[in-house]
Amino acid sequence: MHECVFCQIVAGESPASIFYEDDIVLGFMTIGPVTTGHAMIIPKQHAAYLADLDGETGRHLWAITQRTAAAIRESGVRCEGINLFLADGEAAGQEIFHLHIHVFPRYAGDPFKVVVDWDVKPSREGLNQVAQQIRLAYDRLWYSSKK
Amino acid sequence: MHECVFCQIVAGESPASIFYEDDIVLGFMTIGPVTTGHAMIIPKQHAAYLADLDGETGRHLWAITQRTAAAIRESGVRCEGINLFLADGEAAGQEIFHLHIHVFPRYAGDPFKVVVDWDVKPSREGLNQVAQQIRLAYDRLWYSSKK
Repeated sequence: MHECVFCQIVAGESPASIFYEDDIVLGFMTIGPVTTGHAMIIPKQHAAYLADLDGETGRHLWAITQRTAAAIRESGVRCEGINLFLADGEAAGQEIFHLHIHVFPRYAGDPFKVVVDWDVKPSREGLNQVAQQIRLAYDRLWYSSKK
Repeated sequence: MHECVFCQIVAGESPASIFYEDDIVLGFMTIGPVTTGHAMIIPKQHAAYLADLDGETGRHLWAITQRTAAAIRESGVRCEGINLFLADGEAAGQEIFHLHIHVFPRYAGDPFKVVVDWDVKPSREGLNQVAQQIRLAYDRLWYSSKK
């Protein structure tokens, strides 16, 4: 028996309502839906965080996520919009440490809300400085093709 | 002058704090950050909704999003976790109708919160039925390889 609940689902050791499966990715309904139709897309191979997900698997995860969003719109569940949400790390609200993308329908009056206690608007200079920090980090990590 | 504010940024007609650029995708700082380091990843070619984004562009958008998350963690801004968020449609909170993925740092005590007025837990039977609806829709749309 796997320790990770999503690995248990992948292995068929735990029940799940699966709507999609291939060699790389699994799509199933969460047992704690925000709205009816709330789906999870996961890599079959255990990856706790974004940093543990190789690029190839990530791109396929996205492709299936994008298709799932279209399928949910097509499925007949109430759906006037779609949110994609991913929490990478406990501070980001991650609760199950097997990476997953939430895909859930939205509609007028639904029970989901994002609350932001907006900070002051940053200056252009401040934004430029942060962009520079991220660009440098990106280049260090990924050798950006930007010249 | 483009009508779409993100197309204006792509065209260099509006100022933006850009940290990444290639032929397909642009990464820049939002002017309304949830937290310092809040980045947006967009396709350069106008696509209002997920349904308007071709698969190839989508996979690349994801690849750059995943790398950006790592770069933000590496950049020196306060970051204990990362959220990815995408709103597809007005009912999902979309405000700018040029598809974009939000990538933003999270930390203890930050100003971001998700509020869900949780519904009753669905039964396994109910989840199976929704999964079936989505699977059928997926197959209709994408001819799933699942046999």
